[in-house]
Amino acid sequence: MTRQTAFDALNSLLGQRATRSKSELEQHGRSETHFPAMPPDAVVYPKSTAEVAAILRICSAHGIPVIGYGAGTSLEGQAQSPQGGVCVDFRLMNRVLQINHADMDVSVQPGVTREALNAELRATGLFFPVDPGANASIGGMASTRASGTTAVRYGTMRDNVLALEVVLADGRVIRTGTRARKTSAGYDLTGLFVGSEGTLGLITELTLRLQGQPEATAAAICGFDSMSQAVAAVIDTIQMGLPMARIEFIDAASVAAVNAWSGSTIPLTPHLMVEFHGSETGVREQAETFGQIVADHGGTGFDWATRPEDRSALWSMRHNAYYAIKASRPGSVALVTDICVPISRLAEAVTETQADIAASGIAGPILGHVGDGNFHAILLYDDQNPAEVASAAALSHRMVTRALDMGGTATGEHGIGLGKLAYMQAEHGEAWDVMQTLKMALDPANIMNPGKLLRQG
Amino acid sequence: MTRQTAFDALNSLLGQRATRSKSELEQHGRSETHFPAMPPDAVVYPKSTAEVAAILRICSAHGIPVIGYGAGTSLEGQAQSPQGGVCVDFRLMNRVLQINHADMDVSVQPGVTREALNAELRATGLFFPVDPGANASIGGMASTRASGTTAVRYGTMRDNVLALEVVLADGRVIRTGTRARKTSAGYDLTGLFVGSEGTLGLITELTLRLQGQPEATAAAICGFDSMSQAVAAVIDTIQMGLPMARIEFIDAASVAAVNAWSGSTIPLTPHLMVEFHGSETGVREQAETFGQIVADHGGTGFDWATRPEDRSALWSMRHNAYYAIKASRPGSVALVTDICVPISRLAEAVTETQADIAASGIAGPILGHVGDGNFHAILLYDDQNPAEVASAAALSHRMVTRALDMGGTATGEHGIGLGKLAYMQAEHGEAWDVMQTLKMALDPANIMNPGKLLRQG
Repeated sequence: MTRQTAFDALNSLLGQRATRSKSELEQHGRSETHFPAMPPDAVVYPKSTAEVAAILRICSAHGIPVIGYGAGTSLEGQAQSPQGGVCVDFRLMNRVLQINHADMDVSVQPGVTREALNAELRATGLFFPVDPGANASIGGMASTRASGTTAVRYGTMRDNVLALEVVLADGRVIRTGTRARKTSAGYDLTGLFVGSEGTLGLITELTLRLQGQPEATAAAICGFDSMSQAVAAVIDTIQMGLPMARIEFIDAASVAAVNAWSGSTIPLTPHLMVEFHGSETGVREQAETFGQIVADHGGTGFDWATRPEDRSALWSMRHNAYYAIKASRPGSVALVTDICVPISRLAEAVTETQADIAASGIAGPILGHVGDGNFHAILLYDDQNPAEVASAAALSHRMVTRALDMGGTATGEHGIGLGKLAYMQAEHGEAWDVMQTLKMALDPANIMNPGKLLRQG
Repeated sequence: MTRQTAFDALNSLLGQRATRSKSELEQHGRSETHFPAMPPDAVVYPKSTAEVAAILRICSAHGIPVIGYGAGTSLEGQAQSPQGGVCVDFRLMNRVLQINHADMDVSVQPGVTREALNAELRATGLFFPVDPGANASIGGMASTRASGTTAVRYGTMRDNVLALEVVLADGRVIRTGTRARKTSAGYDLTGLFVGSEGTLGLITELTLRLQGQPEATAAAICGFDSMSQAVAAVIDTIQMGLPMARIEFIDAASVAAVNAWSGSTIPLTPHLMVEFHGSETGVREQAETFGQIVADHGGTGFDWATRPEDRSALWSMRHNAYYAIKASRPGSVALVTDICVPISRLAEAVTETQADIAASGIAGPILGHVGDGNFHAILLYDDQNPAEVASAAALSHRMVTRALDMGGTATGEHGIGLGKLAYMQAEHGEAWDVMQTLKMALDPANIMNPGKLLRQG
């Protein structure tokens, strides 16, 4: 059979780095998603762009699906293999290739994780700012157009990828973009591949913008009596143009889960967690202005994390909130919603979501990158209980519908994958057909991550 | 004949807003470019998206080229009609549709100019930051991915367009993007259309990000003994992460032209023109830091423009530099180069360019948005003198080749049009074929601005 021929060819190419072992297939069928396992038929571990190109030529010749795999932290099933096929795991392509200190950019392979990259950058005085919380791979972050806590200041992967090397479905290798800070030289292919979730090609190299480590940093957490007061403070802060490095909301239910998980004793009310970057004077001025806004909205209990280790603890607590919330109901499945709305509609969106959750019978702590208008409800349900499954699905559906009605998006940063497919038509209308047209032009046999992002069937 | 049938249909649709008058054809065959006139066969002035869609259905049915036209300020021939066809002039679609103050965004029609938009925004405390100098139309700025003096702080059109309405070649109307600050919902079609120079569709509406008018603004001009000292000061400034709102370089030859044009008496040495935005304290701090950098590089003659009218005069002088330089040799043609290089290579790129110009026998004042690594030589030549024509072409060629060798781009902000077509293969390699594939997928009959950006023949 044709798939067997292809696997033989992959074995010849990669030896033991092509495998069909049951445990590896099973492992690559999963990620940090609520979807059940969907394993590939084979897993390969390329070490070079040339090997990726050879893999794609083989799969193209045999019409076999190809699914890119980074750190497995995607939440919408992007890395799963619903139609089987060959999973390309980039863990062996994890080198930092070139740090250009003077130009504040870096070239990396896709398998390097953001923590590993920043560890390697530490001594240079530079850092890569995009921070989705999970220790994702840079290639995966580009593929899903990830962002996270720092996007309010430094932008998303869309804003921080300067150039790419991509292998197309037919094995051709292209380079998009340059190391110049800006360009008007034709179609923005870099931007097209960022966020395309491996459906147009596999990213084999990325050039990223870096930032200088700020002269001064301050971080703090502060509490509010109500969610609406906290969100009102966020809206004022953004509208005033305060250059927040981070401004994160966690509701009382999230605080409870975080306390239980990390042993902290934060009062059980809604909180904002913030960070300021700048000069000593600038940070002091920002902090004063923000403090005034918080006071105007009845915020209290400002707790400043002044030492670097205190800041690390604060953000590690925030980054672990997802795991803390999951652990608050052992054995439950977590459906993580991801809507993003215009900031003027944020309070309304959060209030209505909280009311929906309160009426639903399941737990759904809320937290998010509210400076961008982006927040998550982490809906915890027992996947053996049909009523809870239905509740979670209905809540998620209502959130997305509300976001679209408010001029927002179904997904601020997690992407489409399998999980948001049902909303592409509603969000994009005929523009979704245009995405399909582009997809078919670049991957006519539909071997690149089939089943994701585009209309099916 | 088929074109006559199409023109009859356009006349039925638009009445006197479809014209073949010789003067209007002639006028629309020109723009602020060095290319000779290339007039269309007809000019139409739509008033609505529905009319644009109807125009495209007619042109599509008859296989007639369609060329978008804004303010005619493009420099690479983007708005010209080398294959004739129908020029769609957007001057009647020039309304500001909706200012969303709380969300700091605005929806506009493509024909509004940046100056008209900012005049309408003035009372709101918001402004649209992208400033290419010329009073371009917003639709044209998006189509060429324009930027200019403020990109170093606020980004290019790529960074400032949130959403688009686009009419495709076949008359379909799509909407890309949302009013949310970020999204991961599928391919970034907004980014694909921005910079596509009307070769994929016509933009009929844009949603733009706005900025709050800064609490404090300061601007200044300062002189240096040599270009290399000025550029070294720029590189230090950028590498230090100083959030410059503007940092512009003009060489001694540009200063001479500006003095002659505007009656100013700036010393005939290289200068930097800078602007700072922020809080009162922040601006003071930035200005002090910058002043120290300038002093370290031997800069002198700091002249602060403290009153708003002084700042306006300063930037108006900068914006008119192109016209001043053209006027410095009456009757000459100006070929405006536009390379952008990694900042670490900027001094080398400018030095080598100046040496080339000095040896060429023609004048080529240099100025540019050096904070991005982007600069222009305005090459003045007599188009009746074959030796000068050849000199200008050779200088431009060497600049582009040098930029590409340095990891930069042929065009930082002016785009490809007709003028940089010859460098697409060198800059993009096989990625240029991918652009062609996308183009053919969306415009198989090649009616959208044919002759530009893509491989010809």
